[in-house]
Parts: sequence; structure tokens; C-alpha cells
Amino acid sequence: MNCYLYQYPKSLHMKDYKSSRTKVKRLPSRGHYDQETIHSILDDGFMCHVSFYLDEHPFIIPTAYGRSEDQILLHGSSKSRMMRHLASGEPVAICVTHLDALVLARSTFNSSMNYRSVIILGTGRELQEENEKMEALGLITEQIIKGRWDEARQPNANELKATTVISIDISEASAKIRTGPPGDHKDDYELDIWAGIVPLKTTWLAAEDDPVLRPGIRQPKSIRDLHKS
Amino acid sequence: MNCYLYQYPKSLHMKDYKSSRTKVKRLPSRGHYDQETIHSILDDGFMCHVSFYLDEHPFIIPTAYGRSEDQILLHGSSKSRMMRHLASGEPVAICVTHLDALVLARSTFNSSMNYRSVIILGTGRELQEENEKMEALGLITEQIIKGRWDEARQPNANELKATTVISIDISEASAKIRTGPPGDHKDDYELDIWAGIVPLKTTWLAAEDDPVLRPGIRQPKSIRDLHKS
Repeated sequence: MNCYLYQYPKSLHMKDYKSSRTKVKRLPSRGHYDQETIHSILDDGFMCHVSFYLDEHPFIIPTAYGRSEDQILLHGSSKSRMMRHLASGEPVAICVTHLDALVLARSTFNSSMNYRSVIILGTGRELQEENEKMEALGLITEQIIKGRWDEARQPNANELKATTVISIDISEASAKIRTGPPGDHKDDYELDIWAGIVPLKTTWLAAEDDPVLRPGIRQPKSIRDLHKS
Repeated sequence: MNCYLYQYPKSLHMKDYKSSRTKVKRLPSRGHYDQETIHSILDDGFMCHVSFYLDEHPFIIPTAYGRSEDQILLHGSSKSRMMRHLASGEPVAICVTHLDALVLARSTFNSSMNYRSVIILGTGRELQEENEKMEALGLITEQIIKGRWDEARQPNANELKATTVISIDISEASAKIRTGPPGDHKDDYELDIWAGIVPLKTTWLAAEDDPVLRPGIRQPKSIRDLHKS
């Protein structure tokens, strides 16, 4: 199927997040900057690592996220050092990484990983309005497990107050992707050494009821759907 | 089995990596600072995220690591911006995260994750000696897949020259661990809402031979052992 005619007009409108800071310098052929690629990697996950700089030292924290259009949404305790730092508009870097396979070349030098990762550079903005915060918390919950937001008890006024929600614009970003078999140095193909890839898969195991779950409450649709995906 | 007599003398010698910067401030009961806990989380993985500060912006990069005693070893192209930055002795933060389960409370507010993570604060030191670099590259390879270093073609002089290896002392660090079922607000236990955990498991799928693998080369022990673990 020739997709050229279909894809060309689309690309005219496609956003590009490349900047001098997000341009992939090592192995530039692995770099991607288009909205579709970046959104799809972000939508395949729900855990990111957040990098920030405080008291003259870099820090890093793993946390859940949600994506809404060109925004990354983070939430945390209003007392958290990171949330207060991000709320003050300080710069932040966010990374989402999916490891897909070990790539075992004949040489250790050419051995690698197949992966899809996105790095976003930006600044935080604290959501102030209650309805905006509720919507963002719903998006984060749904990114983790679709359908859960409407099944669970949603935040009350006190819980909402105790939660800081940060939005970071996705405007400066890059994806880096490696796929496929190993690439060895041409002389190495003659060696008697096995080469190939070992794919990695993350799966959901059977859900375990809370030991104090009230009798008669069955696992809801969100859980059943998780195991279908 | 009563392990008290065994464990007590050991703990006298146990290292503690707590500092005012690595002390877990939110939910302090989840914080751990002892060598055994921190080493065991590090030894369960091989991918970390590295946070550093360059040109007045935080950056973040996912990369493989190895642990040797109280050192984290990173490797990369000598041309890489991050490797050159770390080689210059700039401060760095490293995070290793294992996500073990979704924790679905009756309320979204008390929903969480079961996880084990380690954060290390330190500074990089470039390994200069060839034999030191070789040993470190061996350790990184073995952390990813045990037995591969001796099966594959090891780095030659040019490859070694093209690779920078960084060591970071594990001296200031913390682990954060959550396990077990959800903990709900006491009023919420009466709700007709399912609660529990959904464990997550990462498994190795069947290895795929390089399409241009020479006939007659079988999958080696390192691959077979990977699938046993």
C-alpha cells in the first residue's frame, strides 16, 4: 500500500519538538521528533523519571504520569519537595523508557538494547482550579488503568487540597528508538559466536483481592480489561 | 528459625548511606539506607536513569549499569555529552526502579504502586587504566546477562579507547520500598468498591537468532540460563 499521498498532507501539520537541546547527537538516525511518535511512546507507559536541580545537586524521582494532548501531568503530595520545586516553575527533564529487547551482537562493543524512550525538557506549572485538578487526576488514573477512575471513590475536597498537580508542556522533546537485530563489525560475522535478540515482555499477573475486601465484591471491568490487553 | 544471633553482629558492620539529602521525607517508613537492601535492589536490575545538570537545565538519560561493591559503573561513547560531563566530576543522581504491582485502593487518593527503588547521589570518576576499564565493562555485561562476557568477542584496543567508563561511589543513597495490599481511609472499607493489587512481571521471551547468523551456531548457555531465571 502506497501511503505517500495520505501521509504527505498530514506531515505538513505535524508538530516537531526538536531543539538544539533535544536533538539526538549520538546515533542521530535513532532520533525522532514528531508528535505521533512521541505521543505513542508516552501513551504506552505510565511511569516516568523526573530530573530536577535543587541546592546545587541534580535529583531524580520515579513517578506516575498522564498525557493530555501536549501536556504531561504529574501529581504528588503538596508537601513533597519535588512538587513544590516544580510548582515554582523550575526547569525539569522527564524520561519515559520502554525496554523491548536485549541485542546481543557477536562483540560486546556492538551489543545494545532495543528500546523506545522519550525525553521532555520543560518547566512545571501548578494547576490551581479544582476542576482542572480533578480532570488531571482522572487522566493520570486512566493512564495507569483504564476505567478505574469511575469505579473508585474520587478525591474529596481535602484530598484535592493535599495533592499538587503539575502540568509540563510537551514542546521540546525527542524520542530515541532502536529496533531490529544486532549490527556487527563486518569481520565479526565470521566468528563462531551466537548473535540475536532476546525480547522482554511485561505482563499483568492475576489480581489479588485485598485480604479485608468485603465478601461479594468481584473484580471490576478495569481489572478484567487489563488482562485482555 | 531465629536469625537474631546471626543478624545482630552483621548489622554492627552494616553500612548506612543516609544523608540529609537522601533521607526519605515523604512516607519515611518506606525509606531504607542499609547496604544489603540497596545492593539487592541494584542487583535486581541493569537499567538506570541518570540525572545531571548542564547549561542551566536538568537532563535525564536511560542507560545500563553494573554494580561492583560500592560502585556504580556506567559506560558510553567517549563522544557522548553525558559521559564527558560525568568524566569531569560533575554531580549526578542515579535511579533504579522496579515496579512490582498496581495498588488499587477503594479511593484513588490512597491508590499507589508496589515498587523498589534506589536513588544514589554522587560524582563521576573516569576509569583511565585499560585493565580497570575492561573489568568494568565485563561487570556491566554480566549484570545484563550472566555468562555473556566470556562468550562474546571482548573489546579491542580501539573499542576500549572509544568507550568512556565512569565509576560513581555508592556513599549517599536511599531505597524506597512499598509492598502489600492497599491501605484505605477507615470509612472507605464500607464502600462497595473492589480493592487489591495487580502484580506486574517482566519476562524474557524466546531468543531470536540474528537473521544472518552462520548455520550451526546454537543459542549459548547465557541465553538458556536467562530463561531459567
